Amino acid sequence: MIKRAIILAVLMALTDAASAQEGPTTMDIARKPDLKTVDAPSEYFTGKVTITGQFQRPAPSRVSGAIVHFEPGARSAWHTHPAGQTLIVTEGVGWTQIEGGGKYEFRAGDILWCPADHKHWHGATPHEGMTHIAIQDTVDGKNVVWMEKVTDEEYLAPLESD
Amino acid sequence: MIKRAIILAVLMALTDAASAQEGPTTMDIARKPDLKTVDAPSEYFTGKVTITGQFQRPAPSRVSGAIVHFEPGARSAWHTHPAGQTLIVTEGVGWTQIEGGGKYEFRAGDILWCPADHKHWHGATPHEGMTHIAIQDTVDGKNVVWMEKVTDEEYLAPLESD
Repeated sequence: MIKRAIILAVLMALTDAASAQEGPTTMDIARKPDLKTVDAPSEYFTGKVTITGQFQRPAPSRVSGAIVHFEPGARSAWHTHPAGQTLIVTEGVGWTQIEGGGKYEFRAGDILWCPADHKHWHGATPHEGMTHIAIQDTVDGKNVVWMEKVTDEEYLAPLESD
Repeated sequence: MIKRAIILAVLMALTDAASAQEGPTTMDIARKPDLKTVDAPSEYFTGKVTITGQFQRPAPSRVSGAIVHFEPGARSAWHTHPAGQTLIVTEGVGWTQIEGGGKYEFRAGDILWCPADHKHWHGATPHEGMTHIAIQDTVDGKNVVWMEKVTDEEYLAPLESD
């Protein structure tokens, strides 16, 4: 009788374990006042650029992202992303260019897409800052390949109109 | 002599093709005034919810996303994401819950993470709307599995404090 009770208790425990969701039962909420802001590395950016709330999600996700703020005149170096990059612009006015194409302006509320392995840069305009959320896939441990800096001549080249 | 010139021309053309970047030489800029807004499907949401600027990036990217706005009292149904979901809150105050855990409040500027395959819901509070950017990986053609709706009793359950 005791043996049967023990078997039953073990079976019930196993069933509970199998039906329970694994892992946390609360959302991970990174609160705005607690988000870390760091200076973007000067090797890869020109001017004053800050990175806030950077995240890399655990597998099976491949998503990484951050809020990136560019002071007026600031911009990234030329770079590529192995699976492309989405930019959701939250403030200000920016410029961007893919190698071989013209330089285009974008504004708060716009959503940009740069395809995989396309060499490009993005940044603020000379007289107005810009903030965007940047989202990219990490592939084989990499989400960006950095290249040479954007020269003043490249940065200040005439703007294309849509 | 003509033969040599032809061979040279072919070689030059091949070299050009190999060195050129494939695909577009302009960023895809979805301008704010051109973003499409649609009502979220009433099978999967309670109350008034709109989806703006929805995107699914082409392979090798797996990223999909959208700007989702919940009017006061509106919320998603219970659901899971095969590789989790990031919510970047841009306006208002919201509530969220993972099954088996408490209900938590979040605010504009917070960044939320729900792990893969965790049954959860998110929405506005009863008296204030909420907007978030939702980002998820698409795995085997799916980025969400929808379940039953969140009852009023579940929605109005007491709030946990952090």
